[in-house]
Amino acid sequence: MILVNGVACDTVDALDRGLAYGDGVFRTLAIRAARPQCWQRHYRKLAGDCAVLGVPCPAPELLLAELAELAREGADCAAKIIVTRGAGARGYAVPGEVRPMRIVISDALPQHPPRYAESGVALHLCRLRLGHQPALAGIKHLNRLENVLARTEANDAGCAEGLLLDFAGNVIGGTMANVFIAERGVLTTPDLGRCGVAGATRERVIECARAAGIACRVEDIGIERLLAAEEVFLVNSLIGVWQVQELQHKAWGRGELAPRVREWLEREED
Amino acid sequence: MILVNGVACDTVDALDRGLAYGDGVFRTLAIRAARPQCWQRHYRKLAGDCAVLGVPCPAPELLLAELAELAREGADCAAKIIVTRGAGARGYAVPGEVRPMRIVISDALPQHPPRYAESGVALHLCRLRLGHQPALAGIKHLNRLENVLARTEANDAGCAEGLLLDFAGNVIGGTMANVFIAERGVLTTPDLGRCGVAGATRERVIECARAAGIACRVEDIGIERLLAAEEVFLVNSLIGVWQVQELQHKAWGRGELAPRVREWLEREED
Repeated sequence: MILVNGVACDTVDALDRGLAYGDGVFRTLAIRAARPQCWQRHYRKLAGDCAVLGVPCPAPELLLAELAELAREGADCAAKIIVTRGAGARGYAVPGEVRPMRIVISDALPQHPPRYAESGVALHLCRLRLGHQPALAGIKHLNRLENVLARTEANDAGCAEGLLLDFAGNVIGGTMANVFIAERGVLTTPDLGRCGVAGATRERVIECARAAGIACRVEDIGIERLLAAEEVFLVNSLIGVWQVQELQHKAWGRGELAPRVREWLEREED
Repeated sequence: MILVNGVACDTVDALDRGLAYGDGVFRTLAIRAARPQCWQRHYRKLAGDCAVLGVPCPAPELLLAELAELAREGADCAAKIIVTRGAGARGYAVPGEVRPMRIVISDALPQHPPRYAESGVALHLCRLRLGHQPALAGIKHLNRLENVLARTEANDAGCAEGLLLDFAGNVIGGTMANVFIAERGVLTTPDLGRCGVAGATRERVIECARAAGIACRVEDIGIERLLAAEEVFLVNSLIGVWQVQELQHKAWGRGELAPRVREWLEREED
């Protein structure tokens, strides 16, 4: 099901700036038993990302009603929300009067092999490096060609996910997931101030770790440090947690922290 | 007029990857007296950009017939061609079978104040710096949030165009135009191997200069060098040539090379 500005419809304005320039943001979240998971957190992120671009964010009640409409078709599904700056005349200049467009799309929850969650995944180290753009770093905007190219690399390598470094050699994350490493009981996740997408689940893991008395740092991580870590795992709103089993010549066994993180994420959150 | 895959229509598939990820490319060209200007060159660029992304490029005859259809509505107009990777399931992975979408849009030719072409424009030095991404540099893809943000800066500053530097401090170009500088009768335009859009008119100016026996270099240019140049001008397919009259505390009078470049660009080209 696709709702465009609240109306069931499978097309959008051909002059929408989301298409013309990627001028918008999006979120992907799970709906389970008709409940959008971590809705407050996702909405906060959506509103924050809209604010960075200066796109008016739709009211939460509006989106929540639309997610409920998706859930009536299927109580368990993946939902994607796109908010763009709406249609505009030719040219980069932002229209004087912005009428944002919102699209709410439901899809089946992804069917990954169960072993990904049980025993972990192989990670491909992408050749593509992420460029730095602090003005857009962290936000989940619609300019995602780097992710498309990196995803193609990971698929070609037969890996469940690709790992992206930036041009400075820092680990940034997966093509569709955020990354954490565990070292002597301490978690660290990359600083995303120059590039990357700061996902809702990453934020949740940071908060849960701190609440559980486990230190969680946000800082630059080089690839050698990641390869030497005791555990490496990937998180996002649909996969939950995947441990990394293999990257280049390194192999990891089961870790202790990843299962705890899974427990945290399986708790209900509003 | 809007043609979507050849059919007059003002909407596109809501699941198009051009909207979801900016997974596509575009071109803007002028149609004058029902003739698409520099068509061969624009098509070559379009095909080259599609190839970088691995998107099949529509056949030239197809696009030319669609441009002719636009021209029947108005013999002088601006035409925009967008080619995307088409609709796809959720997720960055490229679909196994790609059915590219093409959109051909006509619009009125821009009505800039005549003084822009006659005496020049004020340029705003954008605070936003362009990030490096060699894998996408030079191509006119749909990930254009940097241009949107920079354009907003230029408009807020009341300037006709914004000048963009990269993070290394190199001049890259305008938000919608390429830049040239003239120094003792020699032209130089920025190297766009790390970021920026290598426009069709830039390419044409380089070729025309060489044919006229005027040296034209492609290399890194710092802002101090640009400010010290005898002439600075902007080019694109719709504006032709605009001299830069003002940038920060610097003012330029009329130059000698910009008018020659205008003559070159006013010649017919297939």
